[in-house]
Amino acid sequence: MPQTPHIESHFTGGEFIRDMVIGMSDGLTVPFALAAGLSGAVSSSHVVVVAGLAEIAAGSIAMGLGGFLAARSDAEHYEQELLREKREVEQTPEAEVREVSDIFRSYGLTAEECQPVVDALRKKPKAWVDFMMRFELGLEEPDPGRALRSALTIAFAYIVGGLVPLSPYIFASQADSAFLLSVAVTLFALFIFGFVKARFTGAPTVRGALQTLIIGALAAGAAYLIARWIS
Amino acid sequence: MPQTPHIESHFTGGEFIRDMVIGMSDGLTVPFALAAGLSGAVSSSHVVVVAGLAEIAAGSIAMGLGGFLAARSDAEHYEQELLREKREVEQTPEAEVREVSDIFRSYGLTAEECQPVVDALRKKPKAWVDFMMRFELGLEEPDPGRALRSALTIAFAYIVGGLVPLSPYIFASQADSAFLLSVAVTLFALFIFGFVKARFTGAPTVRGALQTLIIGALAAGAAYLIARWIS
Repeated sequence: MPQTPHIESHFTGGEFIRDMVIGMSDGLTVPFALAAGLSGAVSSSHVVVVAGLAEIAAGSIAMGLGGFLAARSDAEHYEQELLREKREVEQTPEAEVREVSDIFRSYGLTAEECQPVVDALRKKPKAWVDFMMRFELGLEEPDPGRALRSALTIAFAYIVGGLVPLSPYIFASQADSAFLLSVAVTLFALFIFGFVKARFTGAPTVRGALQTLIIGALAAGAAYLIARWIS
Repeated sequence: MPQTPHIESHFTGGEFIRDMVIGMSDGLTVPFALAAGLSGAVSSSHVVVVAGLAEIAAGSIAMGLGGFLAARSDAEHYEQELLREKREVEQTPEAEVREVSDIFRSYGLTAEECQPVVDALRKKPKAWVDFMMRFELGLEEPDPGRALRSALTIAFAYIVGGLVPLSPYIFASQADSAFLLSVAVTLFALFIFGFVKARFTGAPTVRGALQTLIIGALAAGAAYLIARWIS
């Protein structure tokens, strides 16, 4: 049988793609649903454009800053746990030794089988701490530049996504004439986006495309009905 | 020194709390910013309420379904990788043995030191696969009920968060008289929410509260300025 290298071919989801997907999913959906909802309640497309652009500004900033803080708090969490493991390895090495054995024993290994690894780690406190971070806590060292990149990517994707459903309202004066074009353009964009997203994540493409389209349609439909109902 | 057990005291962020935070962060921020933005552009609070409720419907559905699909695609990703590791352990055991050694060698262990663990894992293919899932790929088995719970938690938190900034507009007929009350109530809610969130994640509480408040204020301020500028 072929012995091709395969380590790199496990898909781990590039962070850039992940951030683009986060921003664009909401960017295509929420302003679309808001515009559709308002079309059922007001006649001037100007109000829809004002509300839509306000929403895009608010959503892109909220999501971008949210992504920034999430990435930064991941990094802080990692630092805190790292200090704690360092302290434990120094101050309570016996307890940490037991934790290493416990990890291996949970995979069916005996105390004797894991003893050489335990002994070797004891001699290398730095490697031991790294080992505990990954194997006990499942944490990986975060990339320091990630928070800012993540924020900008999410915000950019949200703005691009949000301008798609809004563009017909910018060029038409009546909200109801822009409505159908906005629905058509956005459902098409959701389908393409879902398809590309599924391609990147390795999921079935047509199912991914339809899922994304259905979420957008459900959100917009609910917003439309609620706005009609209360207006 | 005291030998207190400490394993459980590592904070890992409960999924429920995480989902509540995701939903409420955006729920408090985006409808707030939208309402503030529209107050700068329209005089009737009715339009603000219609747009706000449409946004809450759209946002809660989009985020809830987004959370559902994210949890489900995590579960699918895990299944795919599990099948792949099973296949590799069966078909190319030598390559997998090298991967196990490589993992340990990256922590400064020699080939001899990790040999007993490698040999023991070879005898237990099931434990070996679990070991690779966690230690090579850093993946943990997802909880099957999580997708639905996650979706409902996020949507609920978004709705609760979104109704806070909107409530003053529901009771006032003029948008500008509701505006100041909405700003006051929401900034207060953002501060409390940020404080509680920081409490749960173990971050400094006052800094967390101020960060959350500032994100909300920035998003709302930008939405307000954009809406005024184009209206």
